[in-house]
Amino acid sequence: MDRIPILKMGEFLLVTIQVDMHDRLALSLQEELADAIVRHRSRGVLIDISALGMVDSFIGRVLGNVAAITRILAAETVVVGMQPAVAITLVELGVSWQNVRTALNVEKGMRLLRASLSDAPRTLAQDG
Amino acid sequence: MDRIPILKMGEFLLVTIQVDMHDRLALSLQEELADAIVRHRSRGVLIDISALGMVDSFIGRVLGNVAAITRILAAETVVVGMQPAVAITLVELGVSWQNVRTALNVEKGMRLLRASLSDAPRTLAQDG
Repeated sequence: MDRIPILKMGEFLLVTIQVDMHDRLALSLQEELADAIVRHRSRGVLIDISALGMVDSFIGRVLGNVAAITRILAAETVVVGMQPAVAITLVELGVSWQNVRTALNVEKGMRLLRASLSDAPRTLAQDG
Repeated sequence: MDRIPILKMGEFLLVTIQVDMHDRLALSLQEELADAIVRHRSRGVLIDISALGMVDSFIGRVLGNVAAITRILAAETVVVGMQPAVAITLVELGVSWQNVRTALNVEKGMRLLRASLSDAPRTLAQDG
């Protein structure tokens, strides 16, 4: 397993995290996601972590980085499917996700992205 | 890793296979998928295998079974993102996927599902 697939769904990208991320995998996810956002002119990224029963500070930081990169590329990140134990761990670890929003599942996450997009219309630079 | 997430996207379900499936994981995927199809009244299942660089006859059979179960539950299966080497291997292994259709990516797979659904309207029994 050397890559996490990034699925294009309209103007959004969907990533499901199923495996423990080691350094190289996390790095390649960041790169491929940034590349995909630019290539597909994506407006939002959905990251499903429902398969993760626990997280460590490394994964927490990786997801935070992904969200920060996405934000710089003028797209939004929504993390969906977080299990309660994961939420507790993240708080205990003191992981701060300033750019990350969350939703219960993919459908709610998509709705959240669509709502935030209609609030903030695409800039001229992106449309061009 | 003890489960593969099944994501509900409207009337379809999306599964991305990222890990080597052992017996128990494959069995639980079959059961959870059948359960999800009935619970959400799903019309189609998209299985993304773009992360699989190779397959063996076991995975080929599992995906064939999933498609057969889906078909019995009055939904359709589309396998998306197959790498060329995987296609070659499946043919060489003699895996027969009678109920499986394929598409290049998730978007094309969804279009295929929508097209086939508009051809075959939902039965009264399912709507009730």
